[in-house]
Amino acid sequence: MNIHAIYHEAKSKYAYAFDKDTVHIRLRTAKGDISNVNMVWGDPFNWRKMTEAEMIEHQSKNEDPDFTKTHTWASDKDSPMAMVKDYSDHLYDYWFIEIKPEFKRTRYGFELFKESVNSDERFFYGAHGAYDLSLHPEMLSSLNDFFNFPYLNEEDVFSAPSWVKDAVWYQIFPERFANGDPSLNKPHVLPWGSHKEVTNEMHFGGDLQGIISKLDYIKDLGATGIYFTPIFEAPTTHKYDTIDYFKIDPEFGTNEAFKILVDEAHKRGIKVMLDAVFNHCGFKHPFFQDVVKNGMRSEYAQCFHLIKEPVINFPINAKGFPAPTGYMAAGALNYETFAFTPNMPKWRTGNPVAERYLLDVAEYWIREYDIDGWRLDVSNEVSHAFWRKFKKAVRAIKPDLFILGENWDDSTPWLRGDQFDSVMNYEFTYPVWHLLSREAMYKDFGVEAFKDNISRLLVSYPKNIAINMFNLLDSHDTSRLHTMLGEDERLVKIAFLLQMSFGGSPSVYYGSEIGLFGVHDGNRQCMVWDEAEQNLGLKAHVKQMIALRNQYPAMKEMDMKFISYDQASEMLIYSKEYKDETLTFIINLEERKQTISLKSLNLDFIEDVYNGYKLSVDEQASLVLDAFSFRILK
Amino acid sequence: MNIHAIYHEAKSKYAYAFDKDTVHIRLRTAKGDISNVNMVWGDPFNWRKMTEAEMIEHQSKNEDPDFTKTHTWASDKDSPMAMVKDYSDHLYDYWFIEIKPEFKRTRYGFELFKESVNSDERFFYGAHGAYDLSLHPEMLSSLNDFFNFPYLNEEDVFSAPSWVKDAVWYQIFPERFANGDPSLNKPHVLPWGSHKEVTNEMHFGGDLQGIISKLDYIKDLGATGIYFTPIFEAPTTHKYDTIDYFKIDPEFGTNEAFKILVDEAHKRGIKVMLDAVFNHCGFKHPFFQDVVKNGMRSEYAQCFHLIKEPVINFPINAKGFPAPTGYMAAGALNYETFAFTPNMPKWRTGNPVAERYLLDVAEYWIREYDIDGWRLDVSNEVSHAFWRKFKKAVRAIKPDLFILGENWDDSTPWLRGDQFDSVMNYEFTYPVWHLLSREAMYKDFGVEAFKDNISRLLVSYPKNIAINMFNLLDSHDTSRLHTMLGEDERLVKIAFLLQMSFGGSPSVYYGSEIGLFGVHDGNRQCMVWDEAEQNLGLKAHVKQMIALRNQYPAMKEMDMKFISYDQASEMLIYSKEYKDETLTFIINLEERKQTISLKSLNLDFIEDVYNGYKLSVDEQASLVLDAFSFRILK
Repeated sequence: MNIHAIYHEAKSKYAYAFDKDTVHIRLRTAKGDISNVNMVWGDPFNWRKMTEAEMIEHQSKNEDPDFTKTHTWASDKDSPMAMVKDYSDHLYDYWFIEIKPEFKRTRYGFELFKESVNSDERFFYGAHGAYDLSLHPEMLSSLNDFFNFPYLNEEDVFSAPSWVKDAVWYQIFPERFANGDPSLNKPHVLPWGSHKEVTNEMHFGGDLQGIISKLDYIKDLGATGIYFTPIFEAPTTHKYDTIDYFKIDPEFGTNEAFKILVDEAHKRGIKVMLDAVFNHCGFKHPFFQDVVKNGMRSEYAQCFHLIKEPVINFPINAKGFPAPTGYMAAGALNYETFAFTPNMPKWRTGNPVAERYLLDVAEYWIREYDIDGWRLDVSNEVSHAFWRKFKKAVRAIKPDLFILGENWDDSTPWLRGDQFDSVMNYEFTYPVWHLLSREAMYKDFGVEAFKDNISRLLVSYPKNIAINMFNLLDSHDTSRLHTMLGEDERLVKIAFLLQMSFGGSPSVYYGSEIGLFGVHDGNRQCMVWDEAEQNLGLKAHVKQMIALRNQYPAMKEMDMKFISYDQASEMLIYSKEYKDETLTFIINLEERKQTISLKSLNLDFIEDVYNGYKLSVDEQASLVLDAFSFRILK
Repeated sequence: MNIHAIYHEAKSKYAYAFDKDTVHIRLRTAKGDISNVNMVWGDPFNWRKMTEAEMIEHQSKNEDPDFTKTHTWASDKDSPMAMVKDYSDHLYDYWFIEIKPEFKRTRYGFELFKESVNSDERFFYGAHGAYDLSLHPEMLSSLNDFFNFPYLNEEDVFSAPSWVKDAVWYQIFPERFANGDPSLNKPHVLPWGSHKEVTNEMHFGGDLQGIISKLDYIKDLGATGIYFTPIFEAPTTHKYDTIDYFKIDPEFGTNEAFKILVDEAHKRGIKVMLDAVFNHCGFKHPFFQDVVKNGMRSEYAQCFHLIKEPVINFPINAKGFPAPTGYMAAGALNYETFAFTPNMPKWRTGNPVAERYLLDVAEYWIREYDIDGWRLDVSNEVSHAFWRKFKKAVRAIKPDLFILGENWDDSTPWLRGDQFDSVMNYEFTYPVWHLLSREAMYKDFGVEAFKDNISRLLVSYPKNIAINMFNLLDSHDTSRLHTMLGEDERLVKIAFLLQMSFGGSPSVYYGSEIGLFGVHDGNRQCMVWDEAEQNLGLKAHVKQMIALRNQYPAMKEMDMKFISYDQASEMLIYSKEYKDETLTFIINLEERKQTISLKSLNLDFIEDVYNGYKLSVDEQASLVLDAFSFRILK
């Protein structure tokens, strides 16, 4: 047995409360190393030791499949239970089991079987390591060596708002979505869409009225929530340098206009999520301006991370902004900032004044404007302590408010139920990009690598957390999907297929559904509203994928089953189940027509749900897929 | 390379804030597999990619030890840095490094070297796995594939009260420690010490006045804190079935007597820690009595976990207690309890009334009686959500109040800074027992197994958490140490040596220092106060070990270095360092005299600090240790 590979950790993503009655247990073993795994479990206060006779009997080879059922050594009537190998990557197999301990507590360990031609080995794996059961049969009932799930307290069960897993998000960068109120346009506003290559310095006059006027478009696409990049008063077009957290930026409109926007969105069944930029504020924020004026003696000095006097050691321009507009050299600043940006002083959220101020902001927009979610900017650089308070504060006002962290990496430390509901799932984005990109550097990243990455992602969070993940293909912080995929519409469509058939809530970055392109930050072009200039085929695809997602609950399920086909052909096949219904997704990832033998998959398909027709008898036997095309079969 | 064995997890016990400036990073590899590890790290916003020339140069074999220093690819001036292999167990090597990232954030990855006779291999290990650097030199600067420590927020740094790591605890079971106020004795009270074999049903009249009268004894021993098993009003002698959380049990005295006890203890520099039995109350608690009377319609119904009517489905005796006095059969109870004990209904801490009540209790004894710590009974079965509120509540009143969980298993989920300061470290207790026990079942558990277990324990918590652990050799919940070790005083002394030279705060269970014995629950004998009946040699040893611990700060340090000697002889040798001072502990674990060659250890010893004399020249070369004896050398 590959003992180094075995991994389990109590009360972790490998052992968690799924709901108030159910515990999920996972075990990792080396790929292909272990033939079967039983979980041995029982109530710690109703534990029965094996008798010596039982041990000897259990040790002896036994052909009776019911043997273990009739010789339990832990108390639970269902122990031991066979675990299911549900995912694998190139290194490991992942085993899974769901149990409902009658008294909400369990001690559990693992009985591992390694069957080989020469001999059969059996091991026990528990809290203190692995033991060869031929030498230590007593381990199977050694209570203290079992892992412990001490008690399933309902209040500790992870629970995001129930609506999140069914949501489809539409992300808007407001300055560039629609200009609905020309009266707000300052002289510097350029004609809408007059530049395809845009910079953050250009103004195009996008505003809230523009968004209101396009709510029907968003609803028609099938989105049920809008995620706005920041809209509070700030000098830049991206508005990540907030001056007034309680005020809509005048270029976008008024607080009253925002109230109308929320109301109109809600009338259409659309949720509203704002961007909480709480890691840092803008240089011109009044608290920091007091620091600019008074240095370390400012009453707000402790709201920031000031290093030494002079706090401001660089020139300030005529308008009162830092003259160095980009990053400053590492170590050149006398206060901490986001990255090395003098324009973005970092909040000290541990300070009571800063903390209260930011919590007031968080509460204000919920209480006064009834927003439905907060997306937390640079959330991984803000303290866990602050986010715990944040969650308590916002949930006290609106119990189903959604909390989404920006975190790009694996985010377990923020997803233990006390902080976030979800994070922006870039760990889903990357494998999709890499699979579909035709760039040379990803040439080796094929179907196997994709399955490998996605399988690892699927076991990296508890299932009740994963189902709330915010799955995106691009954002204001990346290149546009279209650009990533060489502007190949076929690949873009497959990306949306992968996204919309993945558990969690998908997000569409405004305009990616009609073929906008651009690299970061050039991805922030004006939305194209002239249908003659939109990629209508792509838009229809996105709309249909969302519609199918709503029609077939299987598409929203977290679990997926990868189906092996011919390793020589780049053909990605996976199926998803909900109750009695199974959908199978077949994707040809080669620049050539491929014929797939459905018979060889041992599945009976009768309907192509994407194209909407019953398969002919011939097609039920084998299907022809064009280059970079796909089928969704039922 | 044994790729399956490699393990690191961001923001975990493998990557944590040690203090406001310092990050500790650990890496696990297969034992003996990897020759050296460099950590490659830099600021994510000041990242420099290697040039191709640098990559090629770095790939080529280079004999210059400063090579990597002069060819950093991540920005930090100290990157890459060599990690230290500080611990090993039979499966793994554990590597460690301490860094102080200038801007409190770092991206980091690992460069692993496997030197062998035939070839030298180099690997990169990061957030997305391991890569052979001869094929993928670009990984050394691939930012997104590095692990992330996004920001070191001071408020998230784990911090227990500073006094805890220097504390020496003395655990008292009050009914059996000293009878100081005979006026409290009810008729059922038996003569003190009249039974050596005791049961929980016997009363001996121990009380608070008795404890007050023995504070000087406790201080003289060297203890600086007393941990009391429960003292609130409850019918049993152990008092884990509380009736009134706001009242000292009348058999023990009054609340006023407790106030005097705390004052007298504090005068002697002794902290007071009480037992918070918040998982369950007693059957006779008024809230539950209301349930007994009104069933599901009780106003307190939601304070408990009631399953169905009739809530009470068993006879109640004349005194109002459950007639079944022990465990009931699994599933026989209609309400949840501790284990299956009808006398201990489980609190639903998620209920606001129950929560407020218990937090009031927690606050009351701090505010009114100035206690210094709460030990949390059955803490692993109470919700994390409750403990988070508990910590906030008690720390708001007393910022240096100690919070100790009872948890027996690995307790990471409770030790993330938001819940406990420490847990009862039974994971330390077991290896000590197993090493020293002469019982047949532990005959294979020798020095190597002990080092293995302790090494694993030392890497299982961050160092700033481990240093607060509550290290015990026995308790009211175990057999007495003396009994565990076959009443062999030599072994008992070694156990105290191991405990007192281990980082964290040691706890002495009353009477184990003078040789009390007994199995669980028979460990709760009357303390023996007649010196003629005390094991004075043992007591002197315990006292001296505590004194040495205070004299030599090295003994309190967390890190220890195991020194290999002759594998054929059971000789345990380890050293501990503080500043310039190193103590070395040499323990002969065989039933025969052994001679140890100090010269072969390559250490110069001049003093025996336990026996208090300078070593002779002969002894400096080689020492003779009697069977089961030890030396502490400087």
